[in-house]
Amino acid sequence: MPFPSDLQIARGAQLKPIEDVAAEMGIGGHLLEPYGRDVVKIRLEAIDELAEAPRAKYVVVSAITPTPLGEGKTTTTVGLGQAMRHIGKKATVAIRQPSMGPTFGIKGGAAGGGYSQVVPMEILNLHLTGDFHAVTEAHNMLSAVLDNHLYQGNKRGLDQHRITWRRVLDVNDRVLRNVIVGLGSRLDGVPRQTGFDITAASEVMAIFALARSLPEMRARMGRIVVGYTRTGEPVTAEDIGGAGAMAVIMRDALKPNLMQTLENTPVLVHAGPFGNIAHGNSSVVADLIGIHGGDYLITEAGFGADMGAERFFNIKCRASGLKPDAAVVVATVRALKAHSGVHRIVAGKPLPPALLEENPDEVLAGGANLRKQIENIRLHGVSPVVAINAFPDDHPSEHAAIAAIAEEMGARSAVCTHFADGGAGATELARAVAEAAEEPSDFRFLYPDEASLREKIEIVAGKVYGADGVDYDLSASRQLDSYEANGFGNLPVCIAKTHLSISSDASLKGAPTGWRLPVREVRASVGAGFIYPICGDMRTMPGLGADPAAHHIDLDENGEIVGLS
Amino acid sequence: MPFPSDLQIARGAQLKPIEDVAAEMGIGGHLLEPYGRDVVKIRLEAIDELAEAPRAKYVVVSAITPTPLGEGKTTTTVGLGQAMRHIGKKATVAIRQPSMGPTFGIKGGAAGGGYSQVVPMEILNLHLTGDFHAVTEAHNMLSAVLDNHLYQGNKRGLDQHRITWRRVLDVNDRVLRNVIVGLGSRLDGVPRQTGFDITAASEVMAIFALARSLPEMRARMGRIVVGYTRTGEPVTAEDIGGAGAMAVIMRDALKPNLMQTLENTPVLVHAGPFGNIAHGNSSVVADLIGIHGGDYLITEAGFGADMGAERFFNIKCRASGLKPDAAVVVATVRALKAHSGVHRIVAGKPLPPALLEENPDEVLAGGANLRKQIENIRLHGVSPVVAINAFPDDHPSEHAAIAAIAEEMGARSAVCTHFADGGAGATELARAVAEAAEEPSDFRFLYPDEASLREKIEIVAGKVYGADGVDYDLSASRQLDSYEANGFGNLPVCIAKTHLSISSDASLKGAPTGWRLPVREVRASVGAGFIYPICGDMRTMPGLGADPAAHHIDLDENGEIVGLS
Repeated sequence: MPFPSDLQIARGAQLKPIEDVAAEMGIGGHLLEPYGRDVVKIRLEAIDELAEAPRAKYVVVSAITPTPLGEGKTTTTVGLGQAMRHIGKKATVAIRQPSMGPTFGIKGGAAGGGYSQVVPMEILNLHLTGDFHAVTEAHNMLSAVLDNHLYQGNKRGLDQHRITWRRVLDVNDRVLRNVIVGLGSRLDGVPRQTGFDITAASEVMAIFALARSLPEMRARMGRIVVGYTRTGEPVTAEDIGGAGAMAVIMRDALKPNLMQTLENTPVLVHAGPFGNIAHGNSSVVADLIGIHGGDYLITEAGFGADMGAERFFNIKCRASGLKPDAAVVVATVRALKAHSGVHRIVAGKPLPPALLEENPDEVLAGGANLRKQIENIRLHGVSPVVAINAFPDDHPSEHAAIAAIAEEMGARSAVCTHFADGGAGATELARAVAEAAEEPSDFRFLYPDEASLREKIEIVAGKVYGADGVDYDLSASRQLDSYEANGFGNLPVCIAKTHLSISSDASLKGAPTGWRLPVREVRASVGAGFIYPICGDMRTMPGLGADPAAHHIDLDENGEIVGLS
Repeated sequence: MPFPSDLQIARGAQLKPIEDVAAEMGIGGHLLEPYGRDVVKIRLEAIDELAEAPRAKYVVVSAITPTPLGEGKTTTTVGLGQAMRHIGKKATVAIRQPSMGPTFGIKGGAAGGGYSQVVPMEILNLHLTGDFHAVTEAHNMLSAVLDNHLYQGNKRGLDQHRITWRRVLDVNDRVLRNVIVGLGSRLDGVPRQTGFDITAASEVMAIFALARSLPEMRARMGRIVVGYTRTGEPVTAEDIGGAGAMAVIMRDALKPNLMQTLENTPVLVHAGPFGNIAHGNSSVVADLIGIHGGDYLITEAGFGADMGAERFFNIKCRASGLKPDAAVVVATVRALKAHSGVHRIVAGKPLPPALLEENPDEVLAGGANLRKQIENIRLHGVSPVVAINAFPDDHPSEHAAIAAIAEEMGARSAVCTHFADGGAGATELARAVAEAAEEPSDFRFLYPDEASLREKIEIVAGKVYGADGVDYDLSASRQLDSYEANGFGNLPVCIAKTHLSISSDASLKGAPTGWRLPVREVRASVGAGFIYPICGDMRTMPGLGADPAAHHIDLDENGEIVGLS
């Protein structure tokens, strides 16, 4: 019998009434707003109401540097959450909402996998409660207000060539990357070049992911810098009268969404900021609620530990005030073999057959990446646990090789089979995480607010990425100077680089040394509260492939959805 | 004491549990999907489950040709619905969902007004249940699939200069009317000129408003024509593999939304197609449910009787199979005075003081418009009732003048004060509608399916608009020939013209005669199922004014919304 598809497994789920799932977190019905039958939004009053409840251990799930296929981080997050019940503990899971662009592009869905999924997966992978659509609407409302400001006389003196605010859509649509708007007649606005990003890349997405309250979200909207005057003064959303409308459009979106796993573990699904030009973590408000919802709050951070986890520690925890107790590093045999440099894994193509042969030495050869990512967790004073995410083609000797690296680094590890076995397949991991979280936490930021932007970049580049130094293009250097002069120097940095290497060169595997980080340009998300240096080509609007998932997603004769994997 | 604002009145509403509102329509809880606390979606199974329930009288609310301020048609629809209970009858109201673009543009909200409103008005005027966002997403998904088709080799041979499918956003954003996409490098797609319309103008909006079932909506998606090959063959959404994904994205949106009035009358709020290039009526599925929900189903059609009501009769009723029993024509003193040609009313400016002086003769002088619109209802075999929507500055002699015109035309009429008094202010109207609906209906379409497109256009132009004839531009004539050749000749027509005159010239008031309808071009919404000739400048993407509502909509210190009127 073939292993069933994710959608088949998800359709067989026995869902608990979602109000009962909330009740297990101590969240009463008066704090819930239903959206359909299987999802509720949690009112923000829950943060205050739960404040006196015991604090859960806070666990972030990160990974080694992934291959283009991903290493099952969401699946492990879900599996670990499910496993906690198997060892007698109550856990809440917190993940990002998937983006519809990629769902209809290459992925066909992102809700975990196998027997570790969030359900109903069709809802998760489509509109959910409309939060992403609210981001699209709020973002583009500001764009319309901005272009109307130019059209109506440009009172603030915006320099058309220094407008940084673009538009967004939650679609993979490459032709929107670079567009000219305002063509036609004089009544059709002021022509200029601009473009669209995918909604996940919107600063509005990062803002609602980082705000702790509705008033704070409103204030952050006002601080968004949309461009600069001819004399270099920043112009904000507040200045052009767009911030209030954006906050109104985002008011309901700020309430976290509650769903459940296949084993009825509560799952907070909220926000989905990009993992390179933004911080790639689910929302602060979800975690502020979830931190009082049981024994463990298990939250996922995007990409490898050099990316999502570093931002989790230095951006998200800085915004939330929460301190993590343990960090999981998901590792796979296939990715470590790829880090040996022997194999090349390409998205959408079968794995090279040689990679599937038993070869623990190759795993060890790629081990530098795992070692460095464990170190990256330790840099922040947090206990690492290595989750060895087992695949059917793995060999026990290869799992043992990963465990040996972990042991050498003084980190706990566990082989887990939650994809095939659900929570029961991750009980060993759950126990290891529980032990790690009991160790006294010595959580610390990597740099103080007061460090200069260059110091911050150099600290992350040197300590986390292992770079020998940082090279700034002239324009990047000027931008940094101007941000410091504008008073943005106290913000943390979110270094936009490839997620396929710890370095800024995607082709360098393992733990690259002897290289320097090239900062090509620097941009600011002042409302979200970070400065993001760009190191390499950052694609903020994906395209569709030759045969995208959109061609295969459809309704069957019963009106059920097919084609979501 | 000043009359309270719409928002103040709406905040004071005593809402009934929405499940109880549904129960009064005979809709059980198993058919409901909650969205927040005050809105439910109704599952489409309700259509079959209610099929044996008694059929309500079906009443469409139309109007004389409005001024740019609108004549209170939604308010009258809501007020009439409320009034039915005051005369011992059960009514359901059906209206369109407001568009967020105009809400943040000039209007600041559209949920009725005064004591005849749909509540909660903040929900109605913002995302509601996300149906418009689903339209945006589905429409732009097809756009992305289309541009990807060009990029990946253009197997279908689409002529880049004959692509008719654009993009949409629910924002008033004039610079998006005409854009060039695909700039950048070869990897950024094929450059071409295109543009964005507002979401209400999307063919997807018209499709989900006209479909009777999920499979029918899916089939209509497939029939969308996105462009033509170099040899003039139509290329459909099905051909390029986008229709299934669109149907999946729109699956939940097809379920009608249930809200309530200030007096707890059930209100189906569903779809919001444009009133000029589309048919301007709420959804067929909502009416298929509401027709079995009580004694009266009161549904609104956009603009004057020459526009929304004509399309209601010839497009919406053709699609639904439902037959109307009565039609309300909303008339106001100010609009009839404007139709006298003496006064000019401009949106956003105060009324001319001379217009407010008592002057029944001016009302009579503008009466030709009312007479023609009553005739336009009668053309379809339906009993007209004139609703004299009273404003504070009106004089009784002026109301009497309107009543005299109605009587001369053999139509019932009633003065109504539902804005100030709620349902109690429209009981006389309710009685008149009830009487009219008891008359034997002789409902008929204006033209048969088999008539040629030119015949259909000429019948509407001659009989409804009072034109002496139709002039076709050469390109329009060629388009009509090509649509007939492509097999679209059996579709009804939706003539896109100004709503500010019965003619195609907005400056002609009253009931213009001695003019000819100029058809500049013709377009096709094959999925929605109509051909739309364009007569004049049709703006499908509004702009923002110098001081748009977006500048004033905000959250107050308690997180409540301010600035929605």
